[in-house]
Amino acid sequence: MSAGPLYGAVEGGGTKFVCAVGRSPTKLLDQVRISTGAPDETLGQVVEFFRKHPVDSLGVGMFGPLDLAAGATLRTPKPGWDDVPVRAILEAGLGVPVALDTDVNAAALGEQRLGAAQGADPCLYVTVGTGVGAGVLVGGRPLHGLLHPEFGHILLPVLPLADGTPDPFEGACPFHGRCLEGLVSGPAIAARTGRPGEDLPDDDPVWDLVGRYLGAGLAPAVLLLSPVRIVVGGSVSGRPGLLPRVRRSLAESLGGYLNHDALGDGIDEYVVPPGLGAGAGIAGALLLAQTALGSATSPVDDPPTV
Amino acid sequence: MSAGPLYGAVEGGGTKFVCAVGRSPTKLLDQVRISTGAPDETLGQVVEFFRKHPVDSLGVGMFGPLDLAAGATLRTPKPGWDDVPVRAILEAGLGVPVALDTDVNAAALGEQRLGAAQGADPCLYVTVGTGVGAGVLVGGRPLHGLLHPEFGHILLPVLPLADGTPDPFEGACPFHGRCLEGLVSGPAIAARTGRPGEDLPDDDPVWDLVGRYLGAGLAPAVLLLSPVRIVVGGSVSGRPGLLPRVRRSLAESLGGYLNHDALGDGIDEYVVPPGLGAGAGIAGALLLAQTALGSATSPVDDPPTV
Repeated sequence: MSAGPLYGAVEGGGTKFVCAVGRSPTKLLDQVRISTGAPDETLGQVVEFFRKHPVDSLGVGMFGPLDLAAGATLRTPKPGWDDVPVRAILEAGLGVPVALDTDVNAAALGEQRLGAAQGADPCLYVTVGTGVGAGVLVGGRPLHGLLHPEFGHILLPVLPLADGTPDPFEGACPFHGRCLEGLVSGPAIAARTGRPGEDLPDDDPVWDLVGRYLGAGLAPAVLLLSPVRIVVGGSVSGRPGLLPRVRRSLAESLGGYLNHDALGDGIDEYVVPPGLGAGAGIAGALLLAQTALGSATSPVDDPPTV
Repeated sequence: MSAGPLYGAVEGGGTKFVCAVGRSPTKLLDQVRISTGAPDETLGQVVEFFRKHPVDSLGVGMFGPLDLAAGATLRTPKPGWDDVPVRAILEAGLGVPVALDTDVNAAALGEQRLGAAQGADPCLYVTVGTGVGAGVLVGGRPLHGLLHPEFGHILLPVLPLADGTPDPFEGACPFHGRCLEGLVSGPAIAARTGRPGEDLPDDDPVWDLVGRYLGAGLAPAVLLLSPVRIVVGGSVSGRPGLLPRVRRSLAESLGGYLNHDALGDGIDEYVVPPGLGAGAGIAGALLLAQTALGSATSPVDDPPTV
């Protein structure tokens, strides 16, 4: 009996690239972390790892924005990483098919197939850490369009502070100031408080604001995508007590307009932490590798209804 | 040679129900308008019309919010129309299969198959009139999830008036005040100016605000759905000079973050008026009727890629 194909998975982030190999997303055989440096150097180390582990195909979940049709990065805040043809470089280096998607679409895929969003379609995977991003699956497939979702840059109304005065913080996004990412990301928290979020206690008032803004930011996602479940991951989201604030703020932002139990008594099961923890991205990248080889079963379980 | 099945189409609005019959969405054979009254009476007249024109199936695009799984209305601002099992009533009355979707999903379908969004997927159809709504197609299919898109109720940041001071208008939505619908719908314009929009000249300053808020409201839709084209219809949107303001405001709201030609030089072809004018909804309803009979070709042209 054959052991089946060997798949490679890459989670490409601004700080590190994680590379893994396995025959299934639930059983990784080897894994390595590479510090993100210049593209040539970093992708060279990725190729080197997979030459030691000859995979049949590769899935890559990568920070964006990406041109998914071209398989390349677009203009990005990460210095040196503009317009890098990631897919072509890896295909040329390894001679196997490479599937590229956003890191958050890969994580959404991992959570929908194996984690906290099983059976939920459409589903939304949101991450809040150094940045804010979202992956969206519709009909089991990552949503692609003109580009791909860039959830973090939604502009939000000013919320009141605990004393009722309008929040005076101008936001930390270089493009938009007070977009969601400019209000709740790690750098935004540091810019607001003068201290990194890790150093702030759980009862610091900033967490209330972060939770309320994140809930307010989920409201347009619910109104536009009508996800069946929302998974909220990332380092900031893991702060104890944050998710209940997010849920309350989401319900408040919707103002009772959507009369659905998931936004009422059922909200604890509607906005949930990841089932795979930090492993969603690499699991999803391995699922992408299966697709690249054409060995995945179709994710579209339902026949078209229209 | 058989003439093929006869389809019925219903566009159910808060003011009127339009009923039509035809063998294709581009050639309607008869059409009637029924004033929207109590559900029993209105749906009774719909049944009566189609008994005179015995159709093989019926497609209904209907004001929402709807429970699409149950085929019924939910709690709605339209008096008397809470929890009406529209699909069951029409199926029982006519004895043919009935497909129900939102009016805006039906219009999106019409525009994607026959109008201004041909070849564009995902696509977004936005209407601005008495209310603000959006239909979304992904993979050729109307987006359904927990409910369906309810675009009009997105909250927006306060924009400055022409003199730079913050817009003091509190908005007209009974649920959310300053949501998009509360800022740009016909009733919102009347609440702000004290006069119905139809009576206001094209150079009234309110149109600048309406255009800017609508563009600001499209920004989250672009960031979450990444549509390949946006069709903007409805009575308010038809005001001369409005669409250029919407495009400018959308580009400004995105702040250059999404570096795509469609949001730059190509924006006139990205945010467009309907190709079918006011006929998108009824054409889409007839396409839904084809689906209900299983006689439509699958709208999913591409094989699943993941």
